[in-house]
Amino acid sequence: MAKQLLFIPGPVTCASPVLDAMSQPMIDHRGPEFAALVARIEGGMKPIFGTSGDVVVLGSSGTGGLEAAVSSAFSPGQKVLSCPVGVFGKRLAKIASTYGLDVEMLETPLGSAVDPDALAARLRADAGHAIAGILLTHNETSTGVQNDMAALSAAIGTHPATVIVDSVSGLGASAFEMDAWNFDIVVTASQKALAVPPGAAMVAIGSRGWERVARATLPAFYLDLRKAREFSELGQTPWTPPVSIAYALDVAIARYHAEGAVRVYARHDRYARAIRAFAAAADLRIFSQPGAHSVTVVAMHVPAGLEASKIRAALRDRFDVVLGGGQAELKGKIVRMGTMGDLTPEDVRYGLESFATVLREQGHAAATSAAAIAGRAVLDETLVAAR
Amino acid sequence: MAKQLLFIPGPVTCASPVLDAMSQPMIDHRGPEFAALVARIEGGMKPIFGTSGDVVVLGSSGTGGLEAAVSSAFSPGQKVLSCPVGVFGKRLAKIASTYGLDVEMLETPLGSAVDPDALAARLRADAGHAIAGILLTHNETSTGVQNDMAALSAAIGTHPATVIVDSVSGLGASAFEMDAWNFDIVVTASQKALAVPPGAAMVAIGSRGWERVARATLPAFYLDLRKAREFSELGQTPWTPPVSIAYALDVAIARYHAEGAVRVYARHDRYARAIRAFAAAADLRIFSQPGAHSVTVVAMHVPAGLEASKIRAALRDRFDVVLGGGQAELKGKIVRMGTMGDLTPEDVRYGLESFATVLREQGHAAATSAAAIAGRAVLDETLVAAR
Repeated sequence: MAKQLLFIPGPVTCASPVLDAMSQPMIDHRGPEFAALVARIEGGMKPIFGTSGDVVVLGSSGTGGLEAAVSSAFSPGQKVLSCPVGVFGKRLAKIASTYGLDVEMLETPLGSAVDPDALAARLRADAGHAIAGILLTHNETSTGVQNDMAALSAAIGTHPATVIVDSVSGLGASAFEMDAWNFDIVVTASQKALAVPPGAAMVAIGSRGWERVARATLPAFYLDLRKAREFSELGQTPWTPPVSIAYALDVAIARYHAEGAVRVYARHDRYARAIRAFAAAADLRIFSQPGAHSVTVVAMHVPAGLEASKIRAALRDRFDVVLGGGQAELKGKIVRMGTMGDLTPEDVRYGLESFATVLREQGHAAATSAAAIAGRAVLDETLVAAR
Repeated sequence: MAKQLLFIPGPVTCASPVLDAMSQPMIDHRGPEFAALVARIEGGMKPIFGTSGDVVVLGSSGTGGLEAAVSSAFSPGQKVLSCPVGVFGKRLAKIASTYGLDVEMLETPLGSAVDPDALAARLRADAGHAIAGILLTHNETSTGVQNDMAALSAAIGTHPATVIVDSVSGLGASAFEMDAWNFDIVVTASQKALAVPPGAAMVAIGSRGWERVARATLPAFYLDLRKAREFSELGQTPWTPPVSIAYALDVAIARYHAEGAVRVYARHDRYARAIRAFAAAADLRIFSQPGAHSVTVVAMHVPAGLEASKIRAALRDRFDVVLGGGQAELKGKIVRMGTMGDLTPEDVRYGLESFATVLREQGHAAATSAAAIAGRAVLDETLVAAR
């Protein structure tokens, strides 16, 4: 298959050593080599989550990890406050309602982040603590919005609800402090900022999270966090794990720490700023509101008169550059360009120049090469300056 | 990692072209290349299942596939007749009871296959059709038992219960005729007879199966077969799929059909007969009853005075040969030697000779080289003769 430059928000372009690790021969998933492997993954993920609690690995996508959190943490009929800022936040709410939870929505206009004051006000009004759970999204790829998790943590304050955070497309790309922010269960997945092929979800659970899980009675089996913990203590997983993904995660986590979290954050931030600089110069309206921009994906309005599908097809067919389209009500209205994966500044530059060319050819005159140069200027910042 | 010869019943030794496929770069899982890939996998699996119905691919182990079947096919409180012949059959029953189904057990002594007459008698007694589901295991790796699925199909006859079959460790290794046998949902996984790394379950659903699924109300989200079907029609999966496993499945299914099902069946049968011939000559009692032997794994009693863990450790540490141990009440009592995976007759011969050496060294005098020769004789049968 021809190598494509993936600028979709997952699966992302993976580094060669990570891909090469995928081809290693199978081992016994109940043997000592696998136990050492899973221990390295769990241990290596803890600082990325910002936790000294437990991390378990599930053989699923991020959605499976979110279902694991919901079905392991709640009991039938409990009320949860869902705070979606797009498709993935609504999906998390849908998981909760599928299991018969009483889901209340804290509404946020599309393109905005959750207003911490609105969350705080709603929780203040819940003097009787009827709200048993709060469902948050760290980073929402459908809108290119990133919530201010420190502010949301402060807004929750001492409210005793179990806090579940979808950080599938956020974790690793910017600072995250699960313990300091008092989050109970945080979910991420292999194919995002860690830049591993999809197939594994990683779920971090703190001590209060485990207390809530111990009391929960919703049905859970394959995605049961209790079973995951029980087997994690033996250096195993309850069910046959995706061994190859574990090999790749092991390599990717070592690479992550070798690069250093601060540099990884700077890289994502720089690429996101470059794309936004390009968009501003090319007169492409950014969908996310100022102050709510994601560092892992930039959502841009399609210029009037152009078609998202044609832009994406031309980029893909002629330049091997793959952008994301809009989802749900944003289908056809936006295109999305991600920053995650093994992308060099040169890759991003090539992506932006290709994007400018296609936009111009399809009639958007503002996408001049000057626009691509605006993006390039951000990419050319030294790493030191970007820190 | 040193290459081991895996004789555990999954994960299994994978062929180099299958492992190499795992290292291919990522592609957009909502793009045309992935659609073509998933269509080849679904189409290639149909003859292996023996169905003209649908096949969907899930990002989970086989256990996840079984939960998908149960949670997608039933409604709260429905009665199911579970017919376990070991640990994995009991696990399927446990999935059903986790979801609040009313699970009745049809008991079978460990080491035996389900008695078709007992099943027929139980269903005849269910004149009011209170039994909404029947849970069967094709092949049970914990005991080395394989059920006669044609006979169980005949025993079910016209009873209208939804029939779910766990063929995780069976499918592909011997003839399976889902449509002819009137099974509604059949589940398998990548890391067994197909000899692909773990990470994907394949679920086949017939037209009556879909009717039952449409009426079912148990909660299902990540493992919801309805969503899997909806996205399969678009050449997609509802959630980000394990793309690399799909690459490997694609290669492995092509290899399967190139070898030809009849030859694949003969290979597994020959290896299983070789291990049983070895066991008989070495005075190792086979756990499965005559007529109930699996072609994918042979379970053998540990000789009196020997320890399973020591036998397995010596084989692993000195010969890189990995056998399975016993599970649950059979822990320490049996060792299990599988036949699945990319194993040559020479590999099986080496495995048996190593096994004989270790048994002899640990005090089991009957495991002479003559015993290994008995196994070798079966392996030396020509492929034509084995057909």
